[in-house]
Amino acid sequence: MSKVTPRTLSGFMELLPARQVQFDLMVARLRETFSLYGFTPLDTPLLESSEVLLAKGGGDTEKQIYRFTKGESDLSLRFDLTVPLAKYVAQNAGQLVFPFRRFQIGKVYRGERAQRGRFREFYQADIDIIGDGELGIGNDAEIPGIIYNAFNALGLRNFVIRVNNRKILTGYYEILGLSDKAQDVMRTVDKLDKIGADKVSALLTDELGVAPEAAAQVLALISHTGDPFDALEQYAGRNATFDLGVSELRAVTRDLAAFGVPEANFRVDLTIARGLDYYTGTVFETTLTAHPEIGSICSGGRYDDLAGYYTDRKLPGVGISIGLTRLFFVLEDCGYLNDAVLTAPADVLVVPMTDDTSHAVQLATALRKLGVRAQIYSENKKFKQKLAYADRLGIPFVALLGEDELAAGKVTIKDMRSGEQTTASAALLCEGIRDKLSGLKAAKPINDAKPIVD
Amino acid sequence: MSKVTPRTLSGFMELLPARQVQFDLMVARLRETFSLYGFTPLDTPLLESSEVLLAKGGGDTEKQIYRFTKGESDLSLRFDLTVPLAKYVAQNAGQLVFPFRRFQIGKVYRGERAQRGRFREFYQADIDIIGDGELGIGNDAEIPGIIYNAFNALGLRNFVIRVNNRKILTGYYEILGLSDKAQDVMRTVDKLDKIGADKVSALLTDELGVAPEAAAQVLALISHTGDPFDALEQYAGRNATFDLGVSELRAVTRDLAAFGVPEANFRVDLTIARGLDYYTGTVFETTLTAHPEIGSICSGGRYDDLAGYYTDRKLPGVGISIGLTRLFFVLEDCGYLNDAVLTAPADVLVVPMTDDTSHAVQLATALRKLGVRAQIYSENKKFKQKLAYADRLGIPFVALLGEDELAAGKVTIKDMRSGEQTTASAALLCEGIRDKLSGLKAAKPINDAKPIVD
Repeated sequence: MSKVTPRTLSGFMELLPARQVQFDLMVARLRETFSLYGFTPLDTPLLESSEVLLAKGGGDTEKQIYRFTKGESDLSLRFDLTVPLAKYVAQNAGQLVFPFRRFQIGKVYRGERAQRGRFREFYQADIDIIGDGELGIGNDAEIPGIIYNAFNALGLRNFVIRVNNRKILTGYYEILGLSDKAQDVMRTVDKLDKIGADKVSALLTDELGVAPEAAAQVLALISHTGDPFDALEQYAGRNATFDLGVSELRAVTRDLAAFGVPEANFRVDLTIARGLDYYTGTVFETTLTAHPEIGSICSGGRYDDLAGYYTDRKLPGVGISIGLTRLFFVLEDCGYLNDAVLTAPADVLVVPMTDDTSHAVQLATALRKLGVRAQIYSENKKFKQKLAYADRLGIPFVALLGEDELAAGKVTIKDMRSGEQTTASAALLCEGIRDKLSGLKAAKPINDAKPIVD
Repeated sequence: MSKVTPRTLSGFMELLPARQVQFDLMVARLRETFSLYGFTPLDTPLLESSEVLLAKGGGDTEKQIYRFTKGESDLSLRFDLTVPLAKYVAQNAGQLVFPFRRFQIGKVYRGERAQRGRFREFYQADIDIIGDGELGIGNDAEIPGIIYNAFNALGLRNFVIRVNNRKILTGYYEILGLSDKAQDVMRTVDKLDKIGADKVSALLTDELGVAPEAAAQVLALISHTGDPFDALEQYAGRNATFDLGVSELRAVTRDLAAFGVPEANFRVDLTIARGLDYYTGTVFETTLTAHPEIGSICSGGRYDDLAGYYTDRKLPGVGISIGLTRLFFVLEDCGYLNDAVLTAPADVLVVPMTDDTSHAVQLATALRKLGVRAQIYSENKKFKQKLAYADRLGIPFVALLGEDELAAGKVTIKDMRSGEQTTASAALLCEGIRDKLSGLKAAKPINDAKPIVD
């Protein structure tokens, strides 16, 4: 029989078992965190009608979309989780209760040029809060707490949540008479971290034709190092949009301590603007302290109109998105995946050593009732090979059931880490194993060491 | 702005929030059960190279495959989880530890004609145990226990796991001199439940040309109503394949009690054969007692060769698959989804009623630390509307923080089911809510009433 070489498409992440366990642990922790904040899970189809999915128009991303026909249907794989959300909310608005808070963790598809760390199939983890007509700023204020607790649940400590408000930028450029250039100015200012103040200033004056005094003012505000509200205060009362932006930013920063966000993990950053035509108020970015070059690992913000291309109903919202597959790749690359995570498929390998397997089965059944993951080893191999199996998989305990044990009504447990062997009644050993495991299972998927927060 | 009508493709299940919670609860219970038996999670891409995915050749299903080109690539959406497993194991054999036990719960795609209860995008939940060269029968013996405990974890009680062994059928037809017609005979006999013994007999003699005595013998064995091993005993020693099949079937039935499978949920059924060219030994089907017309809700069996089209390495395995989307549809249709499941997105709606929101935030933070899902209601609405929000979503508790409560350092909790209001310290109330919730959260996703097992 001629063989086909098995291979996985380039740009599609496929993990070996131990890594998959770590990835799934990250997903589980995010689900738990999002659930704690009252978000309900959604799971929309991966395929949609192209007419529906591309209703907004694509621009740059349209070329990347996996689009094809099947029979009469023009179909596309989803390229984000926002458009399917817009479709879902517009379609089901009558049956939803607003504000509607949903999370979705799912795969999306973009046929980008394949390169290291870029994926064509990747997970996004999104939360959004959608209002019907209006949505209180208190919803924006919750987001830093959710970001902090989500990453904290993963084990990440050295990151900074950066917040700004687009209304501040819009109003400020109105004050400076730069409204017609506002988008270009924002795009330039967004590069401050990368290219420095001098180059930003040069770009503003030379390429955008901003007057030197105005450019100086722009830079003075955005690179202000003290309390940002002191800097903003100077312009108060001169522009309504600006003032509203400042009051919204204050609302977002006011209850941070009550939300449990340490000061070290949060910063007002007047440079960030995010996608220029979508966000209208609060904007968020999150960066790894030791790896700013990776860019934002969790971004989002406030938008006025989720689903204008489907419905006249005004649906403002606020949300964030984590590019989970890329984050996982980056964390692995940085050596941040926690080696202490128990990645074995089982907690106990039950090894029957007699023809009567019923005792082994009973032991495994008893362990499972306690929530302990037990695998029965059914292969006809030498004793050494059975232990090697547990060892290679990292299974922490092996339960041995030989003639002696059966005769005495006992079980021998070998702790594969210490090598220690104990023979006792099954009931006693099961409880003991469960207790020892609870420590092993508390490990978080990420360990980025050197805490800045504790 | 012209609008596009938002719609979801026909044959693609998209659930409203409460139903999605129930679906996700089923997935979570299956993950937990599979994990208890030592299966490791896999997550392979949804897209594969067509050359790789269709290496085995498609036959009937090939027309149904979503296949398309993107740039130079000929791509297909996976139509099951078995071929991607075969690819994965063949590709990574050097890095896997055998027996390799994996579960995968994921979407697959088949462009079938749309009809009620048929889906084009649907979840499969698969487990497989793959050996390297050989695999002990003890692995087959575990499967009924896994099926039973998986469905039991979902809350399903009235179902029967049916088991047979293909070697028994193969050997029996050899004994009767029907080897050349064995596949046709199996296919006919498989219809016994649907069309009855007389029609099966007629088909065997008239269409397949089986001698009347042989047809009578076939029917006598497969419709035997007592202990099936008594019926099988008569043919012992006449055919090696038959004898091996009987001994394998004995091994699969021997430890059922130790595995915790009640007698009422298990049956040896000599009629079942499953896919005729794939399975080679043990075969499983599972039927709902009250709804046999739905067919098998969990099927599988033993195969000799997982990945022959990719590798010369012999990889025998045993596995089962649950068509989860269809099962969910059927359960809903039968009225078997458990109304007692808490489908609200939050356990407590925290309602601040003063300008200072910090106390509300602190309360929500404290609740979340206890694992209680708390949502802060930030909208500027009338008190009645705030309560109506909790009521419409089924949120069981509302925490009220007015001037009086803040002054007294207390919180008022309204139990939305009983209408009862309690004012006390936050710490006391948080613990009380957690305790009340633990009962609500124990509900299983399915309730098929009238227990046959308890």
